[in-house]
Amino acid sequence: MKNLIVVSMFLFSFNCMQAQKLMGFAEANAVKETEWEKKFDAQLDARNLDTWMKFLSSHPHHVGSPQDKANAEYMASLFRSWGYQTEIASYWVLFPTPKSRLLELTGSKPYKAKLQESVLKEDKTTGQLAEQLPTYNAYSADGDVTAELVFVNRGIPADYEELERMGIDVKGKIVIAKYGGSWRGIKPKVAYEHGAIGCIIYSDPEDDGYTQGDVYPEGPFRRADGVQRGSVMDMPVYPGDPLTPGVGATKDAKRLDRKDAITIMKIPVLPISYEDALPLLQSLGGQTVPATWRGSLPITYHVGPSKDKVHLKLEFNWDQKQLYDVIAKMPGSELPDEWVIRGNHHDGWVNGAADPLAGMVAVMEEARAIGELAKQGFKPKRTIIYCGWDGEEPALLGSTEWAEDHQQDLKQKAVIYINSDGNGRGFINASGSHTLETFFNEITNDVTDPQTGVSIRERKYANAVVNADKAARAKLLGNKYIKLGALGAGSDYSPFLQHLGIASINLGFGGENQGGEYHSIYDSYDLFTRFKDPGFQYGIALSKTAGRITLRMANADVLPFDFNTFYKTVNDYATEIKALLENTRTETETENKIINDKLYDLARDPKKQFKSPAVKETVPFLNFSNLENALTRLKDSAEAFQKLYGRASQLSAVKQKELNNILYMAERSLVYVNGLPRRPWYKHEIYAPGYYTGYGVKTLPGIREAIEQRNWKEAQESIDIVANALQSYTDQVKNGMSLLKEPKAY
Amino acid sequence: MKNLIVVSMFLFSFNCMQAQKLMGFAEANAVKETEWEKKFDAQLDARNLDTWMKFLSSHPHHVGSPQDKANAEYMASLFRSWGYQTEIASYWVLFPTPKSRLLELTGSKPYKAKLQESVLKEDKTTGQLAEQLPTYNAYSADGDVTAELVFVNRGIPADYEELERMGIDVKGKIVIAKYGGSWRGIKPKVAYEHGAIGCIIYSDPEDDGYTQGDVYPEGPFRRADGVQRGSVMDMPVYPGDPLTPGVGATKDAKRLDRKDAITIMKIPVLPISYEDALPLLQSLGGQTVPATWRGSLPITYHVGPSKDKVHLKLEFNWDQKQLYDVIAKMPGSELPDEWVIRGNHHDGWVNGAADPLAGMVAVMEEARAIGELAKQGFKPKRTIIYCGWDGEEPALLGSTEWAEDHQQDLKQKAVIYINSDGNGRGFINASGSHTLETFFNEITNDVTDPQTGVSIRERKYANAVVNADKAARAKLLGNKYIKLGALGAGSDYSPFLQHLGIASINLGFGGENQGGEYHSIYDSYDLFTRFKDPGFQYGIALSKTAGRITLRMANADVLPFDFNTFYKTVNDYATEIKALLENTRTETETENKIINDKLYDLARDPKKQFKSPAVKETVPFLNFSNLENALTRLKDSAEAFQKLYGRASQLSAVKQKELNNILYMAERSLVYVNGLPRRPWYKHEIYAPGYYTGYGVKTLPGIREAIEQRNWKEAQESIDIVANALQSYTDQVKNGMSLLKEPKAY
Repeated sequence: MKNLIVVSMFLFSFNCMQAQKLMGFAEANAVKETEWEKKFDAQLDARNLDTWMKFLSSHPHHVGSPQDKANAEYMASLFRSWGYQTEIASYWVLFPTPKSRLLELTGSKPYKAKLQESVLKEDKTTGQLAEQLPTYNAYSADGDVTAELVFVNRGIPADYEELERMGIDVKGKIVIAKYGGSWRGIKPKVAYEHGAIGCIIYSDPEDDGYTQGDVYPEGPFRRADGVQRGSVMDMPVYPGDPLTPGVGATKDAKRLDRKDAITIMKIPVLPISYEDALPLLQSLGGQTVPATWRGSLPITYHVGPSKDKVHLKLEFNWDQKQLYDVIAKMPGSELPDEWVIRGNHHDGWVNGAADPLAGMVAVMEEARAIGELAKQGFKPKRTIIYCGWDGEEPALLGSTEWAEDHQQDLKQKAVIYINSDGNGRGFINASGSHTLETFFNEITNDVTDPQTGVSIRERKYANAVVNADKAARAKLLGNKYIKLGALGAGSDYSPFLQHLGIASINLGFGGENQGGEYHSIYDSYDLFTRFKDPGFQYGIALSKTAGRITLRMANADVLPFDFNTFYKTVNDYATEIKALLENTRTETETENKIINDKLYDLARDPKKQFKSPAVKETVPFLNFSNLENALTRLKDSAEAFQKLYGRASQLSAVKQKELNNILYMAERSLVYVNGLPRRPWYKHEIYAPGYYTGYGVKTLPGIREAIEQRNWKEAQESIDIVANALQSYTDQVKNGMSLLKEPKAY
Repeated sequence: MKNLIVVSMFLFSFNCMQAQKLMGFAEANAVKETEWEKKFDAQLDARNLDTWMKFLSSHPHHVGSPQDKANAEYMASLFRSWGYQTEIASYWVLFPTPKSRLLELTGSKPYKAKLQESVLKEDKTTGQLAEQLPTYNAYSADGDVTAELVFVNRGIPADYEELERMGIDVKGKIVIAKYGGSWRGIKPKVAYEHGAIGCIIYSDPEDDGYTQGDVYPEGPFRRADGVQRGSVMDMPVYPGDPLTPGVGATKDAKRLDRKDAITIMKIPVLPISYEDALPLLQSLGGQTVPATWRGSLPITYHVGPSKDKVHLKLEFNWDQKQLYDVIAKMPGSELPDEWVIRGNHHDGWVNGAADPLAGMVAVMEEARAIGELAKQGFKPKRTIIYCGWDGEEPALLGSTEWAEDHQQDLKQKAVIYINSDGNGRGFINASGSHTLETFFNEITNDVTDPQTGVSIRERKYANAVVNADKAARAKLLGNKYIKLGALGAGSDYSPFLQHLGIASINLGFGGENQGGEYHSIYDSYDLFTRFKDPGFQYGIALSKTAGRITLRMANADVLPFDFNTFYKTVNDYATEIKALLENTRTETETENKIINDKLYDLARDPKKQFKSPAVKETVPFLNFSNLENALTRLKDSAEAFQKLYGRASQLSAVKQKELNNILYMAERSLVYVNGLPRRPWYKHEIYAPGYYTGYGVKTLPGIREAIEQRNWKEAQESIDIVANALQSYTDQVKNGMSLLKEPKAY
């Protein structure tokens, strides 16, 4: 309820400015905007999404494939036909593809892994064998290793602590990990840190196979021989071309030597199906796994090591490939140097219908509809840039190289980056910069859910209440506020938000589009139109939602950013961090007492191997005062700014422009020039992907990860760095305030 | 910590009475008792347990088998040889066994269930095919039914609510349920209440098969063709011979007509293996099951109905069988009319090594050792009665009929009933009357864990701390108090505690003896001695623990009952009940609002069948004042009694006897003559098996189940019945207090 009141109050303060209730619009402009949005909606046609997806997914379209280039040219020609200034921006990147792959179990029950997905008569593109990328993990090392196998659950650091307690060492071994629980690249990275010499990753049927539902083609879930391809580049260090960190991979860019590219995995890694995993898992001896490690194959899971050795041999073509980003601009009529950027990637691992085309075709329909409006006289105030990124799948290649290449312009001009990456039937999901939260809630009131006829916000609310546990439901009743998630990693917003400090949002529909086709040959037009969004109704809902974000950002008199929601969110993070430190302290005390009292030794089953953990260093107290003072100052300034906000519409055009500049540049002050410890490419002090989780976001990452790693000195330093960033941010808010107070400004 | 302080204080109050610190013993007697206990321990020999288990499990020994009778005679002759007055008490009971069993799937992929467990060369008794009871559920109805199949998860009432939301009706269908989540008899009972015409129960490998660990003979878990036999008689209504409720099933007892015996199941029921379940589950169509319903077979679980029909045909021999209870007495030297009863059953479903013999042989060794002490001059004050029950597996037949037959004597004379039912490696587990809790904690200090050398209490504590979740661990540190569980159903204490109101305790070791042999032909000597308690070290630990309970109860000057721990526990139950009512109220309000706001309809996937639940009646407020006043009076009396307790050792012998009588008769006042609603056999107002959970206890059952069933009138009536019972109990405590206050008593 608390949050809802905040929104209502905020909307109310805008109400003083305009009756039409559009955040950031003067009254008359809000009326116009609403009319254009009605016309925009009327333009949207699901048949276009269908046509384009059919074409774009007709052949495998990964980086370097003929269809990848053909798709870029197809899209570029469409954007041009809709009136956009369109170019294909090319970069040249390192993109390894398999030369040879071998995985076999030796010994008395030998098995050679199939490493091949089945052709299905029910799915017409599955038979394009010659064009498909084989099942592999991009940026694995070359290697030829033979060793015993150990099962490491999800392969995250906590799993290795558990293994240590069980007396299992992976040094010199090959590990097998289940997909899930972290971004896939974390698994080989942590395995390598623990001395493993090879890594196999498989899709357990519990996660996206028969346990979840009927497998393809009866249902959309992963077949026994379905494999999840994917990158294992160490993207939590930096994404993009591993040879050109920080700069665009233009033809002539200076490149690192491959051996010096720290984001390339150090050991061979191979993803396999559960059909191929079964004999390997059956070869494992040793203890049965902890209950939380089990999958749902019809076996007893053991940790290993295996009785027989496993042989893994991988060789890659380490080729440079050309990327084709499609960049389509509609210049702003009043503020051409303020850029509203909307993107989705177009490359897929194979035919890539759900990922990424379901999102890409919604973007295209948004662009087409706006093109139609332009023919009817519509002129966006700000410049709108539509982007179809190439090479997202291997390493956010297209977006990163373009953003690095255009970083000077982007730092000055980018107002917002709006991302999607696929789409399906269900509920709106969104994460992003918390300055955008109030604005996003407003948008969700204005889009109707195609299945129920209520707003997408009402449907999201119903889902949250119904699926909450019984204890939480009463509290949720009536609270329709949508809290934005924080952005970690996994799509093209990373270079914009985390490298350049551009406010970003990532959105899409889902929850009724489950399946197990992810990164396999079964992510096809046939599967998508049967199971994921038949009739593309949610494609249209995405066009309406992201289209409104784009249109309102492009046309607003005053940019609809909210410093208060940002303050509140960061203050919550700071509270979490302090609680984390306190919990770490009390848990360490308890754990040390348990160890010293020998309770682990007394509780353990003497028939099983077990090693009591070592006593840990006592957790010190840290000085949070700089952070706390910075937050107090931010709170005061943000609240004071809000009180004056009603006057913004009366500003002269020049001063309004100045204010807008302050509003969108505020996010830049959260960027720290030296970046995060050990990964300077990541410069945003509020949001980053976890160094040991990958996809999973770490908020206030410098502080949080230092505490998690028990690096107290670094934690203290990071507290002060964040405090400084918040101070710069507050200075921006104060500049805005001064401007609003200035008598000459009106 | 709170509880620990209570114990310490209590022990301290005894300390004033004796330096030796044995609860209920005067100082000099405590010294003697301790010496006898040392001699008792010295007598115990694991080789005896091994010898006896080998003999007793050498052939199937279910009710009616030759080995069942032979075992009773073998045990009786041993008890006699140890100096006990021994008899075999026989009863004649209805015990159905299979005449024919057929289960088949019809249609295009027909399957005929095997219904047969494999003979293993690694297990020498598995080949005794001619002697084994086939896999079946005793007290199933005869029947020949053909219908579509529906999967009902665990088959408890909540599962049928979920099915209703999914739009599935089981009327006229056969249901298939997973074992677990309730006592097995609940499944066909609830199925019948919902109109099903047949019930199949299978062992999902998630629960005790390969998911848990290696299957037999590699490990102890359930093989693909292993089946859990078991009774499905409606024992939550009454246990024992279905034809003689409330009276002993002597040869000439008046018997009901079989059709009038309400505890016999109304529909055919058959237990099957997961190998036999697989084709049936694969035949199911319809929606995929909710995530919490899944098992771990390598399929997608669907709710059904099945495409093809299932044919289930069962016919039984409805024979009367003779039971052989072994009853061995050592008369009390001073108080022969105060009985300390110690029992375990001896019948098994097949060879029954873990269940029941692991407990039975520990009981025998206790009896043998006490017999040896008697030869050295030991004379128990009170009468000790050792019991080896027959027919526990079908329906607690032997214990119930004996207890009903001897109810007049037992009501007057029984001080305590001490039960076990199997045993294995691990940690002490105990449930029982809460007057015994302080005494039980004392006992656990004095028994050493055979694997670690610390007391069984210390080891239990270490296990509780180490396995608690992180949030709970700090609170548990230092709290070594063992809270007794409450007794529900599932073994021979039921007639003593729940029908007659005799304070009871049930105990055993376990937690490192997991397996899936339960009620199958694999519960054998071979499996037990490999996996469950090799060397019978925990059998000896059970003898030491239960032996001490028996010896101290038999010899105490003042019986070691504690009214305070009883009060505190019941007060906690009353608090729980009030919270249950409040939670039911707020959850009903929330749920009704969710329904009225149509949130279920908005949140649901329109592509799936779904029915929003109906609005429920508002929960009224109930009058708890009688219960609250009764608890206050009990608290005051129990505390006042405790203050005077130190004087008990100074009482004259006559008055001490009077006090002891008050102490052990107090539990009788918790019995309500009319019993619980719809099941008058269950008369205890504090503990009962759940009407819809079976094994699971319901404390303050009259009130709790009425609230759960939303029967507000009955809930109010039950509150007043419980208040009256507590008032009678308090009167007993006051009688004890008056006696201690009486100047002439000393």
